[in-house]
Amino acid sequence: DYVHIWLFQLCLPKVVSVVFFGYTVFFTNHFRQGSNVSMPSLKAAGFHPRNFSSFVARTNTCGELSSAHVGQEVTLCGWIQYQRQGLFLVLRDFQGLTQIIIPQDEAHSHVKKVLYDAPVESVVRVTGTVISRPPGQKNPRMPTGDIEVKVKTAEVLNSCKKLPFEIKDFIKKSEALRMQYRYLDLRSFQMQHNLRLRSQMVMKMREYLCNLHGKRNISSEYLFLSPLPYQGAKEFVVPSRLPGRFYCLPQSPQQFKQLLMVGGLDRYFQVARCYRDEGSKPDRQPEFTQIDIEMSFVNQAGIQRLIEGLLQYSWPNERGLITTPFPSMSYAEALAKYGTDKPDTRFGMKIIDVSDVFRNVEIGFVQNAVVKPQGSVKAICVPQGATHLQKKDFESLKESAKSQFNQEVLHLILKPDESLKSPLSKFLSEEQQSELIQALKVQADDVVLLAAGEHEKVCSVLGNMRLESANLLESRGLVLRDPTAFHFLWVVDFPLFLPKEENPAELESAHHPFTAPHPSDTSLIYSEPAKVRSQHYDLVLNGSEIGGGSIRIHNAELQRFVLETVLKEDPELLSHLLEALKCGAPPHGGIALGLDRLICLVAGAPSIRDVIAFPKSFKGRDLMSNTPDYITPEELEPYHIQVAWPASEAEANKN
Amino acid sequence: DYVHIWLFQLCLPKVVSVVFFGYTVFFTNHFRQGSNVSMPSLKAAGFHPRNFSSFVARTNTCGELSSAHVGQEVTLCGWIQYQRQGLFLVLRDFQGLTQIIIPQDEAHSHVKKVLYDAPVESVVRVTGTVISRPPGQKNPRMPTGDIEVKVKTAEVLNSCKKLPFEIKDFIKKSEALRMQYRYLDLRSFQMQHNLRLRSQMVMKMREYLCNLHGKRNISSEYLFLSPLPYQGAKEFVVPSRLPGRFYCLPQSPQQFKQLLMVGGLDRYFQVARCYRDEGSKPDRQPEFTQIDIEMSFVNQAGIQRLIEGLLQYSWPNERGLITTPFPSMSYAEALAKYGTDKPDTRFGMKIIDVSDVFRNVEIGFVQNAVVKPQGSVKAICVPQGATHLQKKDFESLKESAKSQFNQEVLHLILKPDESLKSPLSKFLSEEQQSELIQALKVQADDVVLLAAGEHEKVCSVLGNMRLESANLLESRGLVLRDPTAFHFLWVVDFPLFLPKEENPAELESAHHPFTAPHPSDTSLIYSEPAKVRSQHYDLVLNGSEIGGGSIRIHNAELQRFVLETVLKEDPELLSHLLEALKCGAPPHGGIALGLDRLICLVAGAPSIRDVIAFPKSFKGRDLMSNTPDYITPEELEPYHIQVAWPASEAEANKN
Repeated sequence: DYVHIWLFQLCLPKVVSVVFFGYTVFFTNHFRQGSNVSMPSLKAAGFHPRNFSSFVARTNTCGELSSAHVGQEVTLCGWIQYQRQGLFLVLRDFQGLTQIIIPQDEAHSHVKKVLYDAPVESVVRVTGTVISRPPGQKNPRMPTGDIEVKVKTAEVLNSCKKLPFEIKDFIKKSEALRMQYRYLDLRSFQMQHNLRLRSQMVMKMREYLCNLHGKRNISSEYLFLSPLPYQGAKEFVVPSRLPGRFYCLPQSPQQFKQLLMVGGLDRYFQVARCYRDEGSKPDRQPEFTQIDIEMSFVNQAGIQRLIEGLLQYSWPNERGLITTPFPSMSYAEALAKYGTDKPDTRFGMKIIDVSDVFRNVEIGFVQNAVVKPQGSVKAICVPQGATHLQKKDFESLKESAKSQFNQEVLHLILKPDESLKSPLSKFLSEEQQSELIQALKVQADDVVLLAAGEHEKVCSVLGNMRLESANLLESRGLVLRDPTAFHFLWVVDFPLFLPKEENPAELESAHHPFTAPHPSDTSLIYSEPAKVRSQHYDLVLNGSEIGGGSIRIHNAELQRFVLETVLKEDPELLSHLLEALKCGAPPHGGIALGLDRLICLVAGAPSIRDVIAFPKSFKGRDLMSNTPDYITPEELEPYHIQVAWPASEAEANKN
Repeated sequence: DYVHIWLFQLCLPKVVSVVFFGYTVFFTNHFRQGSNVSMPSLKAAGFHPRNFSSFVARTNTCGELSSAHVGQEVTLCGWIQYQRQGLFLVLRDFQGLTQIIIPQDEAHSHVKKVLYDAPVESVVRVTGTVISRPPGQKNPRMPTGDIEVKVKTAEVLNSCKKLPFEIKDFIKKSEALRMQYRYLDLRSFQMQHNLRLRSQMVMKMREYLCNLHGKRNISSEYLFLSPLPYQGAKEFVVPSRLPGRFYCLPQSPQQFKQLLMVGGLDRYFQVARCYRDEGSKPDRQPEFTQIDIEMSFVNQAGIQRLIEGLLQYSWPNERGLITTPFPSMSYAEALAKYGTDKPDTRFGMKIIDVSDVFRNVEIGFVQNAVVKPQGSVKAICVPQGATHLQKKDFESLKESAKSQFNQEVLHLILKPDESLKSPLSKFLSEEQQSELIQALKVQADDVVLLAAGEHEKVCSVLGNMRLESANLLESRGLVLRDPTAFHFLWVVDFPLFLPKEENPAELESAHHPFTAPHPSDTSLIYSEPAKVRSQHYDLVLNGSEIGGGSIRIHNAELQRFVLETVLKEDPELLSHLLEALKCGAPPHGGIALGLDRLICLVAGAPSIRDVIAFPKSFKGRDLMSNTPDYITPEELEPYHIQVAWPASEAEANKN
């Protein structure tokens, strides 16, 4: 068969690898970290033997045929990924690609015409025989690369009438265009992979919670009024048909899950949709999903072991094993060493207190700092900073410290001759210099970033410098943070209350008013509430907070005292919860994992928008359906509301 | 041990059975159909070996101890269900009851005092040894009735300060009170059972869909504007921060799931929360849950087999086996035989067309009916109606036909002497009477209900009479519908369009505008759309619609034609969907099962409120937290809305 041989010799090897790589490259190019997800993992996807072809008009998917199928007649359904002159085509479905050979003989001229005429991205069904690719034509980089399907009959199920742009131009387009044509974006390998990964991980979590540990999956209700003002985020309101009365879309099922415990449900979990109206914060979504868990008769360690087991059980094989228990760090230590409550422990550059070195150094700003009650001098060491960073980098770091924290930062370079290069060095004795070098384990060409001032502020600014300089170093090619490493960390012993920003004499909840005090600090709550540590715990992964929870207050009097006396809130707003606590509420606690963020980190996606099927833009809009949209006053009438146009727009509307 | 023996001989057998029955009776009394759920099924609950005591401060639950545990030291946590004079108590948790024996010796006086002083419904933790109950004291009706726990140490974890009412008065209270103190209501055996059943069935469904058939569980978004006005229900609106622009809470993820198919996701399911603002329809909830499924390359039979497998797989053992495939009936047949699109096939009393019998009967209203194009005379036979129903029952049936349908209904009684007693009989020849008796298989003391008029109307009214007289007969002690039987039925071949009620010359979608026409009727859509049958299918269980779905239109031109030409809708409102259909949309279809209703039927609960943790009242209010509630104008400001008070209330507000 001359044509056949010609086809293989001249076209296929090149074309298929182009198609194949074109596919992966095209679809992963706009994912910075996506390159460690390769096509074969598509095939290795199932945790369970799944039947992907049950109930439908195909015998197999485009990702599963191999030499074992040679000789079988198969029916495949999919999209035309590539078609060449009626000779062959590449058919794609959610599971992979299969090469389809089109017979060139007269008897099959109809099939040839049908497939020749179908535009790229048309949906077709083909039936044919699985054959081995000729020797030398196999493509080991393609899971179905050993075979091809010689088509007998073909049918165009839906012709692709038009694409809004050339598929190959897609990567050049903005994210806004990806969002507007999300249904095309979803066809990409990376989106398919991410959504499948998400589905599988959540299913494994459900198995762990429901089947192994007897948690009830109970849906709480969403149209709920949560009357206590938490910090920061706002709640969406939903007008009801009762004039002037509104539902709220809750930020979390917090009250519901506590009431379920009072109701004796013992253990609960929910993959809960939550709502938070934060205006336009980048990489936040107005609706997000959390794995929400609550248990009775549990303590902090119980919840921690549960979550460790949950993540271990649901962790995808291709991401390696995770070891438990996760390390734990107090909030105080996290702040002191990393300058943040969510330390990225994949790399060092920890904050070192060098106050002792500088206690006798006669520099005004240092002295001003160290004599104050919380005053200190601290520093981080940026490895090879002198080699990889330039003057403008240091300036930008300092500028950032100044603008974000109103804090001066100095830098010192350890030269290869072991001398410190810095305007500061002349104020330091040789011994002091050597002490500093030892304390920070500075090596030649390292850079020390140093700040003096109040403990918390200096920690925060250096924590920030630590991340910024790590980003700078990595942008110059250094690898500080292993992209395949997953560092989990519990952060515990948070303060229960914080001074209000607008009035530091008053206290507000560091997390929420239902958090129980640390058992060792319970009595302090009546005398020095600001010193009380809480039983709140955060779970941090690679420097991102992926979960948080607490043991809750189950004592009605304590809850009332916290609300009324410490927080100066009106306890009547939570009277139903206070009532419930009086009726035999068990000790209980829980946690919520931020699912979008977790999956984003596991998938190595650059944004949570890449692990959500239909995300909103950062202004909270759905660009595909133009949501939110205007509606008529008549539609608002049953809800007894009307639009209060801002003056400018009201004016414009008149015209 | 005298005291011990005394305790058992005098008190325990009586008390425990009182406690036990008090418990079940108390908690099931307000569930009409709850009596077939008995305590032991609590223990037999697990589909999987679950560990209910992992991560918490107990060794066992209160429902699992048996003779096998005798001699073991155990720690239990739970609520004091009953306590008698410091001699013993019954401890309850989500899984059952365990009897706790309090030692009477001096060494344990502290334990005795602690437990003696704790009010009923307090939460305690006890540690003690499992011992066998003395011979004759075992309670075979209690799963833990072979043993008791002799307590060594006890701790009150939370004292029950007050109950809003005596627990034993609870059943006398209104449903409103149950809702207000839902956290207490949730402690009832029945609510615990229902919520566990729900959790387990949904988990099994997920296993079936995700693990066996490779469906992706993808969350769609909820803040979505669905711009096409469907019939009936209204959508909640959610104001955004963009002036005048609103989100909607969707009634179903319909558009999203179709777009996922266009995006090549192949198979999708979601346990979807849906919202429908229907004002105050009884037994409807403003938010409800559906098992939402969509597949590519599937036909009607594929979806039906999938759902049958899904229900079979997730069906609880204690409810017997269900056989598949489910029977199927056309909409036309359902209407003709049962007068409804959701026939309860558990009993007969089918509608019989007796037009032929009456064609020559000289009664004015009959003649008026049969000469018309769709005119007919139809009847149902109520078995033993003459024995069990009284004159006032027939009057109330006729009154209901008159008021609901504006339709006359006559009744005829077949007397034991085989004569028909009715004002009608004198107009019927003996032959006609005998024909009527034969057609309806009337037996002595049966009652025939007869109506004449337009086919559809007569069917509807008789379908209604059928259910009403069945209810009447059952209220008199007859069993027509086996309460343990589950009759599934597919209803298919619905009309695609219906005449609009307010303007019968125009058509509206019988279900929704995305439903595909029946393949045999496709060409009719351009000529006689009113005659086109659809590929919609409903799943009916025991006369309740528990699901519905369809094969969707995947052809952009056909979808546009339906929207623009048939329905006279503005296709621009759905431009994103029409665009998507042009870009290679696969053939696809799906279904949604109403989870609340399904679980309600499986659990035998009288209302869907009994299978939802925190339901709203039928006016859409949460009586526990007083939701929806008033909020301040300041809180509405960011959303650019204000309350438009109805005139009366605005006046009242002024004062």
